[in-house]
Amino acid sequence: MGNTKLTAHKTQKPALNGALLGEVACDVDGVLSSYFKDQLSRADQHFSHHRLWENYQTVIMAGGKRLRPYLVVLGYLAGGGTYNEAIIDVATAWELLHQAMLIHDDIIDRDYIRRGVSNVSGLYRRQYKVPSDHTIDVGHYADSAALLAGDLGISGAYQLMINSDFPAEKKLLITQTFGRAIERVVMGELQDTEAALEPIGTANARLIAELKTASYSFVGPLVSGAQLAGVNEVTIAQFEKFGDALGIAFQLRDDWLGLFGDSLATGKSIDSDVQEGKQTLLVEYAYERATSVQKKILEHIVGKLDATPEEVDEVREIVTASGGKAAVEALIDQYTHAAQTTLHAMAIDSDAKTMLDALSERLLQRQN
Amino acid sequence: MGNTKLTAHKTQKPALNGALLGEVACDVDGVLSSYFKDQLSRADQHFSHHRLWENYQTVIMAGGKRLRPYLVVLGYLAGGGTYNEAIIDVATAWELLHQAMLIHDDIIDRDYIRRGVSNVSGLYRRQYKVPSDHTIDVGHYADSAALLAGDLGISGAYQLMINSDFPAEKKLLITQTFGRAIERVVMGELQDTEAALEPIGTANARLIAELKTASYSFVGPLVSGAQLAGVNEVTIAQFEKFGDALGIAFQLRDDWLGLFGDSLATGKSIDSDVQEGKQTLLVEYAYERATSVQKKILEHIVGKLDATPEEVDEVREIVTASGGKAAVEALIDQYTHAAQTTLHAMAIDSDAKTMLDALSERLLQRQN
Repeated sequence: MGNTKLTAHKTQKPALNGALLGEVACDVDGVLSSYFKDQLSRADQHFSHHRLWENYQTVIMAGGKRLRPYLVVLGYLAGGGTYNEAIIDVATAWELLHQAMLIHDDIIDRDYIRRGVSNVSGLYRRQYKVPSDHTIDVGHYADSAALLAGDLGISGAYQLMINSDFPAEKKLLITQTFGRAIERVVMGELQDTEAALEPIGTANARLIAELKTASYSFVGPLVSGAQLAGVNEVTIAQFEKFGDALGIAFQLRDDWLGLFGDSLATGKSIDSDVQEGKQTLLVEYAYERATSVQKKILEHIVGKLDATPEEVDEVREIVTASGGKAAVEALIDQYTHAAQTTLHAMAIDSDAKTMLDALSERLLQRQN
Repeated sequence: MGNTKLTAHKTQKPALNGALLGEVACDVDGVLSSYFKDQLSRADQHFSHHRLWENYQTVIMAGGKRLRPYLVVLGYLAGGGTYNEAIIDVATAWELLHQAMLIHDDIIDRDYIRRGVSNVSGLYRRQYKVPSDHTIDVGHYADSAALLAGDLGISGAYQLMINSDFPAEKKLLITQTFGRAIERVVMGELQDTEAALEPIGTANARLIAELKTASYSFVGPLVSGAQLAGVNEVTIAQFEKFGDALGIAFQLRDDWLGLFGDSLATGKSIDSDVQEGKQTLLVEYAYERATSVQKKILEHIVGKLDATPEEVDEVREIVTASGGKAAVEALIDQYTHAAQTTLHAMAIDSDAKTMLDALSERLLQRQN
């Protein structure tokens, strides 16, 4: 993708301020655009290939914070790297992977909508027409196409990384980091999925947060950026510690917003986590602290697919009354401050440090 | 995986004869064993991670011809490479990828058995226990776990390749070849899947064979082996031509066995391709050549999930009577001989050439 022009700043150092996230997002979207343009033109002869790439593009361009690419760039700047096209290619690889994981995640969660618009499976559900003389489960075919799209995304992300303009040895190094992150997020997703089959209070919500979010959304991007900049092992270890703490705080905040958030701001129902039986730390803590009557209510409602808003309100009340809510809020604070303490001790570029600090603060306060 | 000992031959040249396929299979299985041992020991603390790797291992060790690894090795020997641990690591990466693709393929085809034993989803279907107070679709959870296992396989295959003991630049080169093969097999699978939604006779069976089998099972492995040996562009292009022709012959033979084979030898039902509505070249040719009465029968039975053996017999008779069977048999011959003609003109190691020639002959005659 070396011929992509950075939209915001060609060769000079970007403005190191709050605007960087937006600039990274813009440049990543530029690389994504040429990636899909390339795929679509190669698929031109084949209707079904073309449609798959089109659906993928529609979904990835529908939005997203581009948080992982931003962290790749901050890791790189932190280690003394200069903002350039190559780092944006690597950052884009993380975004492409993330979308692939979301596509597979949605199949598992049987979601056909994301951020208010149809996801890949949702698009196929509308596009596939069934021959009138056949009894065909269109949803299964749509999920199958989405499964395949996710496979292309995983492999495509590896390719973007491998084709970025960095020395071969460095690319191999960050590709290993990438593989470890994939392994961890997949295992986190597996544990999260299997938790719905287990009795309430037995899942390890903290481990799930660590695997599913911290290692893959924070540690991996930061470390790969820092590795490309050539930082030493001490700094890598500090980035791991920082990313781990911040990622757990992020996931806990996510769980909190999933139960107590403003669904207008988050774009997500605040009932679905309970209905799907998600074993969040909120539920785990509430269950540990609940009276036996409250325990029975939690057991009855958490994981009840057709739980009413009133029933979910009951869960919310128990989570609050039992002290589970306050305990998780304290934990979010604690992890965020642990992350910041680690950060402050790091010997990295001071502008990057300031931006990482501001990001921690913003994630702590976020409403969506 | 550099510490794996080759079982058959440590440092000397292997016996270049019919025994090589068995020796490659044995050495690949050795690398797979240490791969899974490593994964299992790292997953030791986590029951669900451990179970996933165990299920993956059970399935991959249940059998398979190890054809793709054999082709990687032959491509390498053809270009003057010496049989060693590094090439076996790369060969194993192709096998791991193949298994990942089969796992996802089985989810799409709703198969829970492969080679007579449970596949990953099949194993999970038995292992998952549902809490008595929940109404849960266990099959969906089993498919979800299998989906995640396939994701790990794709990424794990990339990692095996990247960690093999070859120079960095060469690894990047074959990783690109790997990515192209993945893209093509996924697109072939998509077309194959979508064919079931289309009227009979409208799918492009030859293109599906090329994408789904030739590019990924033949061209990719041969070319990556040859690239590691450092052959020139002319030889690469010849390998592409040879692999493409042989792969199409292989897929056509596969379709033929799926309708006219001996299910005791193949281990597969000879009714299921018709029931699932597979748009093979046999069906396509028969439909083109059929009378209007025969066309109606084909339209009725192909894709009828509950078609009886007698109904599938009717399809077989039409495929034979219309000349579709003979036409496909002629095509298998034609592609095989085109492959051999290309092969004979190649400037490669003569022992490897002899083995590739013998392999073409064997694939042409194969009963399973």
